[in-house]
Amino acid sequence: MFYVIKLVIGYNGTHFSGWQRQQRKRTVQGVIEQALSQLFKTNIEIDGAGRTDRGVHAYGQVATFSVETTMPAERFHMLINRRMPPDIEIHSAEIMPRAFHARYSAKAKRYCYKIHHGRAKDPMRSDHYLHVEKTLDLGVMREVAKHLIGEKDFRSFMASGSHITNTVREVYDIVLAEEGDVVNIEFYGNGFLYNMVRIMVGLMLDVEAGRIKLEEIEGIIAACDRTRLKHTAPAHGLYLVEVCY
Amino acid sequence: MFYVIKLVIGYNGTHFSGWQRQQRKRTVQGVIEQALSQLFKTNIEIDGAGRTDRGVHAYGQVATFSVETTMPAERFHMLINRRMPPDIEIHSAEIMPRAFHARYSAKAKRYCYKIHHGRAKDPMRSDHYLHVEKTLDLGVMREVAKHLIGEKDFRSFMASGSHITNTVREVYDIVLAEEGDVVNIEFYGNGFLYNMVRIMVGLMLDVEAGRIKLEEIEGIIAACDRTRLKHTAPAHGLYLVEVCY
Repeated sequence: MFYVIKLVIGYNGTHFSGWQRQQRKRTVQGVIEQALSQLFKTNIEIDGAGRTDRGVHAYGQVATFSVETTMPAERFHMLINRRMPPDIEIHSAEIMPRAFHARYSAKAKRYCYKIHHGRAKDPMRSDHYLHVEKTLDLGVMREVAKHLIGEKDFRSFMASGSHITNTVREVYDIVLAEEGDVVNIEFYGNGFLYNMVRIMVGLMLDVEAGRIKLEEIEGIIAACDRTRLKHTAPAHGLYLVEVCY
Repeated sequence: MFYVIKLVIGYNGTHFSGWQRQQRKRTVQGVIEQALSQLFKTNIEIDGAGRTDRGVHAYGQVATFSVETTMPAERFHMLINRRMPPDIEIHSAEIMPRAFHARYSAKAKRYCYKIHHGRAKDPMRSDHYLHVEKTLDLGVMREVAKHLIGEKDFRSFMASGSHITNTVREVYDIVLAEEGDVVNIEFYGNGFLYNMVRIMVGLMLDVEAGRIKLEEIEGIIAACDRTRLKHTAPAHGLYLVEVCY
């Protein structure tokens, strides 16, 4: 039988050089492709919904691949997951119509950025939260978020090195929530440019700290100029939460 | 002024090659000594209460060092902690009598071993918990623990490669507690041999899984033979919680 299979994948980005396959580096795509190729005894390549950078985590990355096999489909999930290392979990393996593609079929994505705020660091969380040494003013950060919601040209929020020409995206919502000493910032949108979430978090932190004024934000967006925003929040606070189809 | 200073240190062992200073490797001792040497502008060496292996974490490691300085003592904590990377936190820096020594003055230690049990892995916890794919029977594990409490020759629980001759230690208590999908095993004793906690956890898991029988334990202890216990639980579930003086 010929199958197109959709994997929903969680991973801890700490010990990976990002998602994308690279020679002689441990990457999420590389590790999964190697396991699938061994399982199905043929060379398998997977397409991810999005490339995550070194250190970025995922609760719900999605990848697709196609395979010709006699293996019973109901065993795919267990057999694939069993071959995963402790820092990757395959949440599901689902058979899809041939036209389905992890990246091209995606309608929207959710990301979350996690900040631990408070005077003392918590070393046990150093790979999973950005630590900020002061108590953050969420009111100010929510004001920043309001400016970032909507359909806009987000060129000012795209890291240099990206070759995308259409930089218009729609951010449906940004929700800041406090849970104990943690601030979770959830981003929901139809797509995000390279480093866009991390640059948005950098802007929120810069405005919160008084380094950028609220009144400057509209001008920064309108400028479509990456050099206006110098602060990219670190990778290890970022999680790809969900890819929506 | 001449000071003997006691540091209480928390660290995430994930990105360290253990506690002990080594050429060209990132170790906790090495990173702290380098920071202290820069701060006090003289070569500083620290003595840790115990060496933790690669991947082992600490909430309350203790280290001492001596220094001749004009710097005001009340600023030590802040100045040292400020120089630490995100995965080390100095909880306190306290001035001690000259005779105090982190290792030789220690009376007892507490360790904790953390296990995440349940069918699905949680990749975000892969550096901080041992994952076991089934629900553990804590009753059986508590039965094992009963045999390990008391003053005994724990030679069967010492990793090969240790050169200690007196292998008698007293384990005051072992407490197993469940918190959601996590089992915490706390060990409290006057001292622990090299890998002793991890080998005890290995025994608990082997008995729980039926690979070793409860009735065999006393014989294994009495044999004073390391080869009877082949299972050492992995380093990343272990935490040095407290050193008592």
